[in-house]
Amino acid sequence: MEDSLFSRDIAAAQSIAQSTPDAGSDPQFLEVYNWFKAQSNLEDRFGQVIRQSIDEVLDGQRTGRFNFRDLEKTEKTYLGTKVEIITRAEFDLNRGRAMDFSVCGHDVDSKFTIGSNWTIPREADQHICLLIKADDHRGIFQVGLLRIRDDLLNAGENRDRKRSPSAAGRGAIRWIVPDGRLPENILLSLSESDREAIFRNEKSGQSRTNELFRCPRVQGRIVNRNTVLTVARQDDSLKRVRDARNQLRSAGIMILGHQGEHPHIARSLDLPVPSKGSWVSVRVTDVGDLHPARKSAQIGGRNYAVWGEGDAPSVAPPSY
Amino acid sequence: MEDSLFSRDIAAAQSIAQSTPDAGSDPQFLEVYNWFKAQSNLEDRFGQVIRQSIDEVLDGQRTGRFNFRDLEKTEKTYLGTKVEIITRAEFDLNRGRAMDFSVCGHDVDSKFTIGSNWTIPREADQHICLLIKADDHRGIFQVGLLRIRDDLLNAGENRDRKRSPSAAGRGAIRWIVPDGRLPENILLSLSESDREAIFRNEKSGQSRTNELFRCPRVQGRIVNRNTVLTVARQDDSLKRVRDARNQLRSAGIMILGHQGEHPHIARSLDLPVPSKGSWVSVRVTDVGDLHPARKSAQIGGRNYAVWGEGDAPSVAPPSY
Repeated sequence: MEDSLFSRDIAAAQSIAQSTPDAGSDPQFLEVYNWFKAQSNLEDRFGQVIRQSIDEVLDGQRTGRFNFRDLEKTEKTYLGTKVEIITRAEFDLNRGRAMDFSVCGHDVDSKFTIGSNWTIPREADQHICLLIKADDHRGIFQVGLLRIRDDLLNAGENRDRKRSPSAAGRGAIRWIVPDGRLPENILLSLSESDREAIFRNEKSGQSRTNELFRCPRVQGRIVNRNTVLTVARQDDSLKRVRDARNQLRSAGIMILGHQGEHPHIARSLDLPVPSKGSWVSVRVTDVGDLHPARKSAQIGGRNYAVWGEGDAPSVAPPSY
Repeated sequence: MEDSLFSRDIAAAQSIAQSTPDAGSDPQFLEVYNWFKAQSNLEDRFGQVIRQSIDEVLDGQRTGRFNFRDLEKTEKTYLGTKVEIITRAEFDLNRGRAMDFSVCGHDVDSKFTIGSNWTIPREADQHICLLIKADDHRGIFQVGLLRIRDDLLNAGENRDRKRSPSAAGRGAIRWIVPDGRLPENILLSLSESDREAIFRNEKSGQSRTNELFRCPRVQGRIVNRNTVLTVARQDDSLKRVRDARNQLRSAGIMILGHQGEHPHIARSLDLPVPSKGSWVSVRVTDVGDLHPARKSAQIGGRNYAVWGEGDAPSVAPPSY
């Protein structure tokens, strides 16, 4: 159901991008739209705003949670407030007179949903809303603007007297980020059996961290600090990663970070390159002399390639 | 009004500590009570739990807020959830079957108020509640246990059908921390004119950080990382403090941290000693030869004492 809603919205976005019915008749709306579109790296920044908001409310380090479905009702409500706070900070916006933001001097209200539709309070009537919607399972999000009008909302109210944009309302959204890619929630993306393997040891955060980087479905993907904290449930993610390096070396697993030769090695092995506070693990095999057909990295005088079925097991180089 | 409530509760706590009416008739309750009382550093730990919860929801680094009265309704509701999450993590508790915690195998519900009384949902009836109450303006808190019973609640319900402990109910609370001191919210404790001086420069986080440590009412008191982040509204509190040191040196102001000679100097000058991630600023005067009657610290071959009315202005020693 969400699938079709998303596709419909994107189709609507494309048709509106051509027709832009609001542009002539609503200059304030157009000013707000143009202001957002003039900001740099919109998709990355909104993606980080949403990722950070979800991760902070999940509070994985303290709770071990990584799935927003495990949030309590008060936390789900608060998630919208957190998105508003981080959006305001990220784009250096002030509060509006009656609404959450002031953009080019115009009041703009912030509405977030992790479900299929937004709920709009009566106070937002006639106001411009920044509508943000995310699907953490599928790793996608959308950001758009809508001037709320009675005929763009469904007739039914929820018990807080809020209403949702109708199909016509959703069709009238002017998208700022029509089809955003959310930074990955790697734990949510794993199979139940992979997660069980990672979380099996209830007592040792180090053991869980080791299993995270050992997991074949995690290898070759960026693992961020929040994921390590959620798995380890401890303060010092850096120390957990350092110790995991030592303990996984004999299994041929390296954990590459952002420092020294690490980014260069990641590129040589065709892996994503970690930025500060993120890592990528990889099982390697010592390929001896260079295989011209195979990507490899020279470390301590030896050549390592990404291990594949049929390769000999190797010990990973020290300190990686 | 809160004043008298707090005093009344403490008086009640003292009378109950002698009579302990529940002990014989409610062995589960007594087990839970004894479990908490057996934990080390109860006052410090609950104080940190509450401080951390309030500070995280205020989100001072992003919002500049330090007063819980500036929280929105959804944030005030969420604050109780945050206290529950941090309490669970701090005391390594599991979730209960139906309630928030399991303590000695018994369900215990968590209830927090920053007002004068708690609101108890119907589901908590007959259950043991951990009641936490804080007054951030006065820097005090209380933690106690109560087995919820119909005759311990006021008759009136709020619109969520929740009820509050009656005077008899509050009198029946068995206190774990009857009279706790909350880690100070230094910005909240300042006068409006001091705060205006600190927050005057809207553009420069560094300038605001300088004014924080320059403020005479802040000097001699522990300033924590959260306070610096709230004032600076930037990520790197350490760098802001380092730069403030350089910029305040000519005004004779030192900012002592937890490293090197700093704790020793703080002790020599009779100042509170900062732990990691906190600081204390002080205006000093070069007192030349030692004054045996005056506390002083030797730094770089010179003797410095805390500046007082009538002392000559001095430049502070470098790197402090």
